[in-house]
Amino acid sequence: MARKQKNDKKVKVAFLGGLEEIGKNICVIECDDDIIVVDCGLGFPDDDMFGIDLVIPDFTYLEKNVDRIRGVFLTHGHEDHIGGIPYLLRTMNLPIFGTRLTLGIIENKLMEHRLDFEPELHCVQAGDTVKAGCFSVEFIRVNHSIADACCLAIRTPVGTILHTGDFKLDLTPIEGDIMDISRLGQLGKEGVQLLLCESTNAERSGYTPSEKIVGNSLDGIFLKNRDKRIVIATFSSNVHRVQQIINASVAYGRKVAVTGRSMINIVRAAQDLNYMHIPAGTLIDVSELKRYNPEKVTIITTGSQGEPMSGLYRMAFAEHDKVELGVHDLVVFSASAIPGNEKLVDKLINEFTKRGVSVFRDSTVEVHVSGHACQEEIKLMLALTKPKYFMPIHGENRHLAANREIAKTMGVPADNIFVGEIGKVLEVGTKEAKWNGTIPAGKVLIDGYGIGDVGNIVLRDRRHLAEDGIIVVVCTMSSDGAGLLSGPDIVSRGFVYVRESEELMEDLRQIAAEAVDECIDRGYSEWNQIKNLVKDDLSRFIYQRTKRRPMILPIIMEV
Amino acid sequence: MARKQKNDKKVKVAFLGGLEEIGKNICVIECDDDIIVVDCGLGFPDDDMFGIDLVIPDFTYLEKNVDRIRGVFLTHGHEDHIGGIPYLLRTMNLPIFGTRLTLGIIENKLMEHRLDFEPELHCVQAGDTVKAGCFSVEFIRVNHSIADACCLAIRTPVGTILHTGDFKLDLTPIEGDIMDISRLGQLGKEGVQLLLCESTNAERSGYTPSEKIVGNSLDGIFLKNRDKRIVIATFSSNVHRVQQIINASVAYGRKVAVTGRSMINIVRAAQDLNYMHIPAGTLIDVSELKRYNPEKVTIITTGSQGEPMSGLYRMAFAEHDKVELGVHDLVVFSASAIPGNEKLVDKLINEFTKRGVSVFRDSTVEVHVSGHACQEEIKLMLALTKPKYFMPIHGENRHLAANREIAKTMGVPADNIFVGEIGKVLEVGTKEAKWNGTIPAGKVLIDGYGIGDVGNIVLRDRRHLAEDGIIVVVCTMSSDGAGLLSGPDIVSRGFVYVRESEELMEDLRQIAAEAVDECIDRGYSEWNQIKNLVKDDLSRFIYQRTKRRPMILPIIMEV
Repeated sequence: MARKQKNDKKVKVAFLGGLEEIGKNICVIECDDDIIVVDCGLGFPDDDMFGIDLVIPDFTYLEKNVDRIRGVFLTHGHEDHIGGIPYLLRTMNLPIFGTRLTLGIIENKLMEHRLDFEPELHCVQAGDTVKAGCFSVEFIRVNHSIADACCLAIRTPVGTILHTGDFKLDLTPIEGDIMDISRLGQLGKEGVQLLLCESTNAERSGYTPSEKIVGNSLDGIFLKNRDKRIVIATFSSNVHRVQQIINASVAYGRKVAVTGRSMINIVRAAQDLNYMHIPAGTLIDVSELKRYNPEKVTIITTGSQGEPMSGLYRMAFAEHDKVELGVHDLVVFSASAIPGNEKLVDKLINEFTKRGVSVFRDSTVEVHVSGHACQEEIKLMLALTKPKYFMPIHGENRHLAANREIAKTMGVPADNIFVGEIGKVLEVGTKEAKWNGTIPAGKVLIDGYGIGDVGNIVLRDRRHLAEDGIIVVVCTMSSDGAGLLSGPDIVSRGFVYVRESEELMEDLRQIAAEAVDECIDRGYSEWNQIKNLVKDDLSRFIYQRTKRRPMILPIIMEV
Repeated sequence: MARKQKNDKKVKVAFLGGLEEIGKNICVIECDDDIIVVDCGLGFPDDDMFGIDLVIPDFTYLEKNVDRIRGVFLTHGHEDHIGGIPYLLRTMNLPIFGTRLTLGIIENKLMEHRLDFEPELHCVQAGDTVKAGCFSVEFIRVNHSIADACCLAIRTPVGTILHTGDFKLDLTPIEGDIMDISRLGQLGKEGVQLLLCESTNAERSGYTPSEKIVGNSLDGIFLKNRDKRIVIATFSSNVHRVQQIINASVAYGRKVAVTGRSMINIVRAAQDLNYMHIPAGTLIDVSELKRYNPEKVTIITTGSQGEPMSGLYRMAFAEHDKVELGVHDLVVFSASAIPGNEKLVDKLINEFTKRGVSVFRDSTVEVHVSGHACQEEIKLMLALTKPKYFMPIHGENRHLAANREIAKTMGVPADNIFVGEIGKVLEVGTKEAKWNGTIPAGKVLIDGYGIGDVGNIVLRDRRHLAEDGIIVVVCTMSSDGAGLLSGPDIVSRGFVYVRESEELMEDLRQIAAEAVDECIDRGYSEWNQIKNLVKDDLSRFIYQRTKRRPMILPIIMEV
């Protein structure tokens, strides 16, 4: 009787982003000397991160282990899965693997970031397997709200880890294949050790509708609005959605103008890569719009989230130099408002309504479907892959917890389900899986060109400044002990309207002057003692008078 | 044949708030020498109004015409209908008419504001009519998410104006009567000249469910969670909701603890005024909680909107000194998130989920119903009152426009529908109605004790400060032309973390010094010339280096 060789290998799985948060998805998988990275996304700032443009993962762990990284594997081309790549590549040149559209989008991004080396981009297609150290990574087709999305079956020394990426099941996709159900089922039969499953829609019952539904709605809208110009806002990355809008336009004899930088870029890239099919003569430039009857034109634009400065925003506020909308126009929001953007979107709709523009949105007509699996699709994924261990990923706590409950109803034992947080390491063996230690993980904030130079102190100051403004108190003191040479002068910003508060400002000057005098009388020689007294006296007085707490910044000039 | 006397009177109707916005509802109706005011609410600041606590209407027009005002008539006791009263009464003593609960809530508010006169509060009940100059105002019962709500039938020299206040039709109200359908129908038969109809839910089809639905859901929740402590967050003003929570608690043998200042106040007031019925021995103090088994207790709290500092917020972040929640607890959000608060509510739910607390919210169970009329109820109002002229009120443009469409489907001619904006005057005669002129209207911002001292300039500065912080450049110059005595010194807040950006800060100092030197070389004698050059040079350099635009504040001290 041959005795099985004992396999005591351990594979470590950790996330640097994408757990307990939406966005900046990135997963690190390692065994012995080999590391692979799945996705590298960015996130958007919380409401209280004033001035921050983007949030990226903390790459410390990858930087320290750069020699062990065998590759970065991308599931699809959305910002929250690839947006961190240009920042990752600033300090390390890593081989990157992804499908054609995904890499096409990355190439565009990398051009803007100007690296000083040629990045190593490896194009794969669904069905391909890539060897990476002791791992091998198989790309498997899934459906999603961007073309060419894959999940990853990662063979490891302890068994197969399946990373779903973002997915839905679309039985009538606009182009390309249905999610590769049979391949997933086959993997399930062979045995899946760990399923890493996205959680975005885990709170929603049922199935996410097919993208085709939107085509039907668009058809109805185009049919009933033959007398109107139609403007449709959607996510630029949703190539299939844009294709459907173009199809409807062509069917109803309309020309199509595309506006918004990212929309123009994506339409061009998708055409070049053959992901989009536009009959010759359909596309016109926005500048040519006036040559056509408005009812013979469709305008596809960005700005579906109400972003200030987007084309749609400028149309709403009548600030667009090429498109002026009124009672003969129809605007369609072919997107749902991302949490936090509801009021921005409502604001645009109010403006359009005021100008008499008709508006359709996803709450009134089926002009948008999600790209993420609802509960029944997650159950299908579980039924197909029959994982031993389960880890919900890509979501806030409420999403992860909902996904855990789904796994339970599908029979995964509670002890085999791991709801994690970023940085926490799941150690997976052939016989067991358990939490074991942490690696550095966090948020790195990007403000302008600065990466990580805005931290908690700067943000706290920005919040303070935003709330009640700043009062600067300046005086010039003699360094030879002769005392006050000029000032104190008071300058404020964001506190009160100074021209109508002259009396208050004069009071503040008096308080500051008295505080400085008191310090001189007491013989304070440390500038800091003076500053503190001025600050305390002023803030007490201001709070009593106004119930506000502006930042107070005393400055002493020494002559 | 008797010849009818010609009536060429005109009644003017204008809103100082509540059109093209949610909140600060206030309507002014005048004829000849008489003015009446309907409601006087407050609004909440937009996201970009940093540091603003509340928004109230501009009372200029009322202040100028104070001698003509015959009374303020209140439809119900919600903040957006009465919250402006304490501010209105600061400059004028006006008779105020409202039902018992409405006045009870106002008395509470006025105590906090300490007026130097006894306000003239007149208590009425549904069915009463009050004479006010040439007007008479009849209070008619409607249902709403607060007890004792009325609409107003206002007899004027040109006919009846019906102001719906906020309303819904609840055929099974928790306490009190159903909306007085027959009285409204009778008025319709007599003839309604103008209907002012609320629009909050005009985008929603169907009927708003009865408050009783929530009772059924609560019953199911209490039945299935006998082993858990139950915490329920709702709006304190929803007396009927609180009553239902208490009823369910009593039915399942639970004690009830109430927490949150406004919740405690309202429960006390509602009990005193006999709007709430709590069996003796049911209420316990939060400090007594530990004397009872957790599963024998219900906690009713504020914080359903995720407000920081609310009781529920502190429970979520484990900062509440009396209540610590965990796996044996259930939290129910018996409220929907008001637009703009979604992320705050989600944040709390994530925290609870993380601690293993079960959560129910209105998207999962029917634990909340709206207090506002949906489309079918607005149609009912139109069918009953058969108004000649129609004006949608209380809502943003999208709500007002949706309400206009409802009126059209009910047969009101488009020319007889008036979608207005604040300050615009609708002139109504017996034969016609038309827009005619405007009166002053706008937003007055309240920040701490300050009313109206924060305007556009201050807000613009706060937004600027929030975005990129501030850089203060100070130097001391000799007034006798001897030039620079000290500095320039650079101090920044909210820009970069200075300790890690010493090189950048030194560069800024250099740039500023060079700019000052250049000014001295050029012989600039105006401090403003120097300030402008310093500002321009610094901001150009900073933008090139960091892509940020902090506020730059040059200060010159003269010795």
